[in-house]
Amino acid sequence: METFAQYIIPAIVTFAIGVILGPFFIKLMKRLKFGQQVRDDGPQSHLAKQNTPTIGGIIIFASVCVAAIIFGLKDMALIAALSAGAYGLVGFLDDFIKIVKKRSLGLRAYQKIIGQFGIAILLAVYAYNNPYIGTEIILPFTDAKWDLGLFYIPVAVFVVIAIVNAVNLTDGLDGLASSVSSVIILTFTVLIIAMSNAADTEYAAQLNDLAKFGAVMLGGVLAFLRFNIYPARIFMGDTGSLMIGGAISAMVMFSRMMLLIPIAGGVLVASCVSVILQVGSYKLRKKRIFKMAPLHHHFELKGNHETKVTAMYVIVTVVLCLITMLMVKI
Amino acid sequence: METFAQYIIPAIVTFAIGVILGPFFIKLMKRLKFGQQVRDDGPQSHLAKQNTPTIGGIIIFASVCVAAIIFGLKDMALIAALSAGAYGLVGFLDDFIKIVKKRSLGLRAYQKIIGQFGIAILLAVYAYNNPYIGTEIILPFTDAKWDLGLFYIPVAVFVVIAIVNAVNLTDGLDGLASSVSSVIILTFTVLIIAMSNAADTEYAAQLNDLAKFGAVMLGGVLAFLRFNIYPARIFMGDTGSLMIGGAISAMVMFSRMMLLIPIAGGVLVASCVSVILQVGSYKLRKKRIFKMAPLHHHFELKGNHETKVTAMYVIVTVVLCLITMLMVKI
Repeated sequence: METFAQYIIPAIVTFAIGVILGPFFIKLMKRLKFGQQVRDDGPQSHLAKQNTPTIGGIIIFASVCVAAIIFGLKDMALIAALSAGAYGLVGFLDDFIKIVKKRSLGLRAYQKIIGQFGIAILLAVYAYNNPYIGTEIILPFTDAKWDLGLFYIPVAVFVVIAIVNAVNLTDGLDGLASSVSSVIILTFTVLIIAMSNAADTEYAAQLNDLAKFGAVMLGGVLAFLRFNIYPARIFMGDTGSLMIGGAISAMVMFSRMMLLIPIAGGVLVASCVSVILQVGSYKLRKKRIFKMAPLHHHFELKGNHETKVTAMYVIVTVVLCLITMLMVKI
Repeated sequence: METFAQYIIPAIVTFAIGVILGPFFIKLMKRLKFGQQVRDDGPQSHLAKQNTPTIGGIIIFASVCVAAIIFGLKDMALIAALSAGAYGLVGFLDDFIKIVKKRSLGLRAYQKIIGQFGIAILLAVYAYNNPYIGTEIILPFTDAKWDLGLFYIPVAVFVVIAIVNAVNLTDGLDGLASSVSSVIILTFTVLIIAMSNAADTEYAAQLNDLAKFGAVMLGGVLAFLRFNIYPARIFMGDTGSLMIGGAISAMVMFSRMMLLIPIAGGVLVASCVSVILQVGSYKLRKKRIFKMAPLHHHFELKGNHETKVTAMYVIVTVVLCLITMLMVKI
């Protein structure tokens, strides 16, 4: 597996960095009293989580930054790392304000929108202008590409915003967002490695680097997961969920696999759709469809233990990711 | 990923069969009152598990059998399936006697020994005589093989017995053995696929079939995991743990990767070693080293939630499996 060493070593090194840095950040966040402001409208049982420190995404952020330098990520992989970092920063500001102002909501809506859309537009324009990425996306099941032309930009912006917010919504149970996104990141890393091996072009070389970024993210998220599993010692906060969203967005965009993320990330879609349905139904009919949205709280309130919901989400994601791998013709 | 479809499809199909069969078996076991006889010497908190049905390994057994027929496993892969099945049967007898006699111990020691050694010897002799497997095993980090000659048989028997009993010992928390062994099976399946792709011989063709068996086992174990996660609706029993042990044994033996299982299966080794140390220490010094052996009970009694111990074991196994992949030169 020598050829795989170039991906496995970055993953292990980043994991090690994260595991070493973790306790330090947990102590720091505790000392700064950066505890989670638990949503007033979340499940009652979650109020016990009030004092768990948050902004744990900074563990992922720090370990990925160090690893990105050690392994010299460049070009596409560097932009992907910047995408993760920029979204992580937006999330961090949001988290930080929440804590300083001691309220459950952070950045103002327009600030979030400007931040999130701004980065998404930059990413879309980068891909659009990149000679290797361009405006074509892979159509599942076929060798064919679908050229979106100028529509690439709005479509890509929509996809990025959707991914970032879907990961954010899915972050609500101990270990949930981190374990589900580990599986998704691993899957796209494997797919990108396979794409890179199938060709011998400059694009393939850049994809190879992008796969290393995927490996680094995987290591960082797994290291965080080590502290985030039930009972969580720290939460990722928006810092973590937006950063992970930014990373996944760049990976699927640069590998032109945007059409596959709704399948691999089926549980992320479920989080979004459940919130939309719930809010829509309540506004239209004054009735709720789910006991609570996002969907994972619905399952929890139906009497499933938090860890069970998380485990189910992971199993479903593993199967969806296997199906996703079947759908790509490389 | 067309070339991977031959492995992914069997995994998904077996998973689907297992998920469909699962509730039926759970009801059957409940109706037959095949509840777990919880070890008197286990953690007190586990007494609540007294009424959870066991012999859940039969879900894996049934789905793997059906899938083995559907996907026409033959040669090496068929022997691997038989190895899993034979150990599953020994485990089933043990479970069955436990339940019928309403006591925590099943088969008599000599019966277990005859069964376990008998199958291990048959497997070792099969490998020894097989023109493709033979007496050489892969040395990590190098291209070199190590020819054990006639010593292959006792070494292989020891490895098989160790694996089977290690999985059995590791089966003590909801979802523990099933999730850890999923990761191990996935890893060896990937390694076997890589080995098979690297050559173009009859051995490579047979390894390809062995990888399909790995995929089928993975699907079966994941399907079982769906019912076994905390709070478990069913336990695998010895039926499951011995079957999984038999499957892993055949996979590492036939791919000549016996030397790698102690690394990938580091947590399995920890289970065995902790029991040996505990018993040895108590006999020699009348002192216990761990609060309880196997090691997972020690962590649990130190105040870690059952699900946390399981999650930690999985994270450690993922990292150990990544390291294992680095060690194989294919």
